[in-house]
Amino acid sequence: MKKVKVGLLGLGNVGKGVWKILNMNKDELQKRSGYDIEISKILVNDLNKNRNIDVPRELLTTNFEEILMDDTIEIVVEAIGGVEPSVDYMVRAMKRKKHIVTANKMAIGTNGKILLKTAKEEKVMFYYEASVGGGIPIIHGLKESLTANKIEEVIGIINGTTNYILTKMTLEGLDFHQALKEAQEKGYAEADPTSDIESFDAMYKLSILSSLAFDTMVNIDSIHREGITNIRSIDIEYAKEFGYVIKPLAIVKERDGQLELRVHPTMIPQTHPLANVNDSFNAVFIKGNAVGDLMLCGRGAGELPTGSAVVGDIVSILRNKENISCEFNSKKVDKSNDIKDMDCIQSEYYVRITVKDKPGILGEISTVFGENNVSILSVIQKGKREKQVTLVFITHSTLEGNINKAIERIKSLEDAEKIENIIRIENL
Amino acid sequence: MKKVKVGLLGLGNVGKGVWKILNMNKDELQKRSGYDIEISKILVNDLNKNRNIDVPRELLTTNFEEILMDDTIEIVVEAIGGVEPSVDYMVRAMKRKKHIVTANKMAIGTNGKILLKTAKEEKVMFYYEASVGGGIPIIHGLKESLTANKIEEVIGIINGTTNYILTKMTLEGLDFHQALKEAQEKGYAEADPTSDIESFDAMYKLSILSSLAFDTMVNIDSIHREGITNIRSIDIEYAKEFGYVIKPLAIVKERDGQLELRVHPTMIPQTHPLANVNDSFNAVFIKGNAVGDLMLCGRGAGELPTGSAVVGDIVSILRNKENISCEFNSKKVDKSNDIKDMDCIQSEYYVRITVKDKPGILGEISTVFGENNVSILSVIQKGKREKQVTLVFITHSTLEGNINKAIERIKSLEDAEKIENIIRIENL
Repeated sequence: MKKVKVGLLGLGNVGKGVWKILNMNKDELQKRSGYDIEISKILVNDLNKNRNIDVPRELLTTNFEEILMDDTIEIVVEAIGGVEPSVDYMVRAMKRKKHIVTANKMAIGTNGKILLKTAKEEKVMFYYEASVGGGIPIIHGLKESLTANKIEEVIGIINGTTNYILTKMTLEGLDFHQALKEAQEKGYAEADPTSDIESFDAMYKLSILSSLAFDTMVNIDSIHREGITNIRSIDIEYAKEFGYVIKPLAIVKERDGQLELRVHPTMIPQTHPLANVNDSFNAVFIKGNAVGDLMLCGRGAGELPTGSAVVGDIVSILRNKENISCEFNSKKVDKSNDIKDMDCIQSEYYVRITVKDKPGILGEISTVFGENNVSILSVIQKGKREKQVTLVFITHSTLEGNINKAIERIKSLEDAEKIENIIRIENL
Repeated sequence: MKKVKVGLLGLGNVGKGVWKILNMNKDELQKRSGYDIEISKILVNDLNKNRNIDVPRELLTTNFEEILMDDTIEIVVEAIGGVEPSVDYMVRAMKRKKHIVTANKMAIGTNGKILLKTAKEEKVMFYYEASVGGGIPIIHGLKESLTANKIEEVIGIINGTTNYILTKMTLEGLDFHQALKEAQEKGYAEADPTSDIESFDAMYKLSILSSLAFDTMVNIDSIHREGITNIRSIDIEYAKEFGYVIKPLAIVKERDGQLELRVHPTMIPQTHPLANVNDSFNAVFIKGNAVGDLMLCGRGAGELPTGSAVVGDIVSILRNKENISCEFNSKKVDKSNDIKDMDCIQSEYYVRITVKDKPGILGEISTVFGENNVSILSVIQKGKREKQVTLVFITHSTLEGNINKAIERIKSLEDAEKIENIIRIENL
């Protein structure tokens, strides 16, 4: 197996996520990339800080030059954040012919032009899927999948902190300060929450999304920005009365040949899919002139979701290097060993049975379920003083084989007229 | 501009969508792919059929050999559907070194192995984003973006017809046959609806998704398949009583080292995002060990959405040929010309004002709005017999400049105490 060495800048949330994923999914990553991916050096500020992660001490360095000048390191993952020294480090690394993966929306939002220009000049790859929407493949979607479209608008919930705060205010009636405090306690908001609640974070991200969607280079100065600090509980209540929900939206639309670019709290209809994107989830809603309406939704932040995007970018770089394209594995699964028999799946079940309206029939059927290890969660019997009665059962989770055996037995009961329907329940 | 010639097999829904997109987005496609993409021949069954599309008659042919033997054609788009002759055509085209783009889930579900093996042997690209989920970039997501993950489950609404039928039964109380008839009238269901309502279509698609998600080759025989024909209105009502919605799901889960593979109508909690994916929309819900929960949702069928995926694949092929990667366009937008001034955006507005409880103040403010071309949709004034009163206005769509002028004027009214909040409304 070929080996590729990666230099990691920063061991905060994103850096830790990358380290963890490279370890926990090692086999899959080797298969998919063709490489054994090794983090060979990690740049940190403080060698002695306790980081709650099992990283060999000898990988850590406080000196960027050690990564920069090491020609065996082919890929640099920038996970420091902020503008300086990140931009400087990335530019210098590219000049040493290293490919870059970054999660840094601020660096791209402010210095995207120089970063992408350097990548082009140095003929290295520069990937930044993690910079918007964490694990949601929105950059990839705009860059690769939706190329057939003229994009008409992109509307996103791209800041998890403000979505969390507004969700708590909406669903639990907290006021802004209570909700912010809860977000800070849960680690969703920083001690200084300005970047989130004043929508700077969303502004950087919107500049990236709109640059990609509209084949242009959107400067952050072009974006109208409002924070969410002015939203009061009473506004949320009135919104509800009118059928709206207040969401922290980043919006870009092409209208009359011009771009509208704005980040602000917005009322949207309660019935729109974005209205139900709650807590710290992110979502991006795209309207293309071919694809129509498209929505991508998932975890916009956090160690592993952001790490998922970073490591996905590393795999893309390795595949592009080698021109590997992904194929179905030729390994055919063996039905008897690799595929679960339907009798062995676990599910909850809805069972509707027509029975004769005789005393004891409910008891008889319930007993059969019990004898076959099917435990009942709910029953509905609605009497209609007719000869036939409908019984509806919802079971606890059980093996499908148990249900099948119970049903066979119930069919043989004299007073059970017909098994009308059996529907599996997924408690997603 | 370099030119690339494409041979199109079939001029039904998908073929027409491809033709239309290549025409309507010609400029964008040239910029993004580096090529002028020209459909140079189209295989049809009947030269004289009226297809309601403006395609030059001389492009049509009934003879596949004309496309196969034309070495100037580098890419073949297969949009015939079904297994034969599609699979045969694709294999022969690949042997003539043509790249393939297809929307054909049945061909891949049944003959994926031979198709992908041929592509590998002949060193051509074989792309099939359109085969599952229409315009939703789910194949790309699994193949390229989520490579950092061990996928744990994929749960999808991947057949629009059955989702439409169950939605109509759920929201409008239609019975199965009424809903099917409506689906047929709207063109969502075929005259012979078997493939959809008996879940064959979803089964083919699930075999593709699960092969990609689990790095394997899932045979359609391994998939447990049930149609939706047995669902009665009464089941939908009972589901509601228990807090569930019935959705046509395709499910693959890895459990205990085995795959569960099943397609059947399923009850899911009303609060789950998939429960609100209605009508003919498709959605795929993915759980990965790094990314967590991810959902992609959009148009799963139709000329343009499916065409969007096909044409996106053509662009990918052209970029891979040339090793083009997408970058921010260096064209910086000019703030004065290209960015809309905030005063010129159109929106509806929520305006909350605290006023002195004096006669005539509502009239005064309403008049100011009117004088500034802001028309009022709703007003709420809840009397509380206090000195101050809250007025809440929802406006019709208007220019932000008008709102700003009106607000300036209202601020100067003696009895208007405070403009408490102004929130934009997007009627998405």
